[in-house]
Amino acid sequence: MARRAEARVIREQSGEEVRVELGPRSYPVVVAAGVLAESGPRLAAAGFGGRCALVTSERVGALYREPVLASLRAAGFAPAVIEIPDGEEHKNLAWLAVLYDRLLEAGIERHSALVALGGGVVTDLAGFAAATLLRGLPSVLLPTTLLGQIDAAIGGKTGINHVLGKNLIGAFHQPRLVLADVDTLRTLPRRELLAGVAEVIKTAAIGDAGLFAELEERLERVIGLEREVIVPVVAACVRYKARVVAEDEQEVHGGRAVLNFGHTVGHALEALTGYKELRHGEAVAIGMGAAVRVSVALGRCRAETAGRLVALLKRAGLPTDIPSGLTPAALALAMRSDKKSARGRIRFVCLEEIGRTAFVELSGEEIVSHL
Amino acid sequence: MARRAEARVIREQSGEEVRVELGPRSYPVVVAAGVLAESGPRLAAAGFGGRCALVTSERVGALYREPVLASLRAAGFAPAVIEIPDGEEHKNLAWLAVLYDRLLEAGIERHSALVALGGGVVTDLAGFAAATLLRGLPSVLLPTTLLGQIDAAIGGKTGINHVLGKNLIGAFHQPRLVLADVDTLRTLPRRELLAGVAEVIKTAAIGDAGLFAELEERLERVIGLEREVIVPVVAACVRYKARVVAEDEQEVHGGRAVLNFGHTVGHALEALTGYKELRHGEAVAIGMGAAVRVSVALGRCRAETAGRLVALLKRAGLPTDIPSGLTPAALALAMRSDKKSARGRIRFVCLEEIGRTAFVELSGEEIVSHL
Repeated sequence: MARRAEARVIREQSGEEVRVELGPRSYPVVVAAGVLAESGPRLAAAGFGGRCALVTSERVGALYREPVLASLRAAGFAPAVIEIPDGEEHKNLAWLAVLYDRLLEAGIERHSALVALGGGVVTDLAGFAAATLLRGLPSVLLPTTLLGQIDAAIGGKTGINHVLGKNLIGAFHQPRLVLADVDTLRTLPRRELLAGVAEVIKTAAIGDAGLFAELEERLERVIGLEREVIVPVVAACVRYKARVVAEDEQEVHGGRAVLNFGHTVGHALEALTGYKELRHGEAVAIGMGAAVRVSVALGRCRAETAGRLVALLKRAGLPTDIPSGLTPAALALAMRSDKKSARGRIRFVCLEEIGRTAFVELSGEEIVSHL
Repeated sequence: MARRAEARVIREQSGEEVRVELGPRSYPVVVAAGVLAESGPRLAAAGFGGRCALVTSERVGALYREPVLASLRAAGFAPAVIEIPDGEEHKNLAWLAVLYDRLLEAGIERHSALVALGGGVVTDLAGFAAATLLRGLPSVLLPTTLLGQIDAAIGGKTGINHVLGKNLIGAFHQPRLVLADVDTLRTLPRRELLAGVAEVIKTAAIGDAGLFAELEERLERVIGLEREVIVPVVAACVRYKARVVAEDEQEVHGGRAVLNFGHTVGHALEALTGYKELRHGEAVAIGMGAAVRVSVALGRCRAETAGRLVALLKRAGLPTDIPSGLTPAALALAMRSDKKSARGRIRFVCLEEIGRTAFVELSGEEIVSHL
């Protein structure tokens, strides 16, 4: 008992809790080392009990399924486990259908918690199933990737891909609870970790100049996942995302669109390369490189500011140039069919200063003309 | 010009407009003879323009597609037409996938109107596509069945069936505008019209004793679709549904569950007969017969009140007895897997008086024991 209590104190010290404020849909995001092993009591404290479903991927399940299941069972839950294959190519309608079948076969009811353990593919797919099964089940997200912890699991975006584009099918559905265990980042393949770092850099670039300066100072310690550095960095990113989401939950006021910095070109690159060659974060890193080039060309951004961003991305080992072989015409067309384009016009996010952005309405052709 | 103005005055006199009050998601329901031919100007007045999609079924499309398209085109719209086969068995994931493909191929964007012309199958399926494509498109519903006009098109419920149950997959997504043209009811097969009358009777029984008395007096004129009778009857049902939905948009407070009167047994019957033998309204008529039997057995309802309801249903040519051949055990099991059951308990809607209901928590087994 003494050891357990001691361990818990250490956990609380090495963790932060951020609240996403959305009125009746508000929820806490716990960023802490080892919090997965507390899943059961934390779900119980959030009002859940009995039957629940744990959706995970094969790779993540092999690593982290057991501590989560043990904690859930110890807290009196009866979890059904559903595994989907790893990879963005499985975030589709076919696997959604499998998920519907298995959840219903498992006897999931309207108040049962759907717990998603994994990266963005798992939380997006399981979150969309939660949004649409029985017209809405409560979801609890346990993101295990850096991108998931700072972005995908925060804000209620759920969805699947369509052959014509990423996340073209989806819904807004806020989770009830998010547990971000930074220890899971240690088992990420290095390339995936760095792709997540791209989104950390994005967050800092668009909304937190202080964080950006810290990253410039301690990037290697962030990538090294030193607990005293990674917890506050993840928490800072969650806090920024939570603030943006609270101001514009469903992208109706336009404020949330600031998060698309680097994503207009990034999404187009992912679509053109079949979601396979580039990790999402890598595509966004290239997209940010493109965005600052457009920003400078439009006279919105000083070359020095653009240079700071590109330098930090390169220091993290991220790509910033559009792969050779992609034609401007293909890129413009792919941007046009992005779900955010309206009558062919795109609200492009320019960087003005570190921590400050501006929207400029452009066509896909205008964007590629500046690259 | 004079004739046109004159025609419009007549239409306005033979129509009613009911507003569903849901704050920023409020919308009008226009109940009128001939309103389909005004689709274009009415959509334009609601702020839509340019590209839009008209989703309809083969049978309804053949009857009413042209006047709607002509009106849309005259108002400057560029409608893409998508037809799905008729029948509840096509309200599934496979046809949803077809709808996603065709809508994206048609170049539908986030602000494009998705117009659904048809019965509940079309409005539920197209409404769900609107709820989930590009994380939400605005929908305009043109219900052409009595059930659609008084129920399915009002309140934002969208969804598809699963082999394990009806509407197990879906989302809440309020339309922006509903145009209920009562003239379309004239081409309904008689059996489908009467199935709709079952829901009219349900509405009156649970919430409008005055309407119930009117139905007892003029049922044959309602079924005969006399304009001066059917317009106010449809509008009264829409008003009732709008009130219930305004109080409990997403079935969280429980108030909306009153609409499930007759549906607990009704849904189970539909599931057990593969959604083919019984029309939804027929299943609900039998479900209402069952519900008043349970209500009387529990001492909640006088036999005389139950008798008034059963007599009115029979007078409309509707079934009220559970088909022989269905075992109580199968019925209980089917009720248990209904998405509204929570941990095996069902909030059963009892009738206390005409116009007044009460919830009783029962198991599927308890319900069948009273039948």
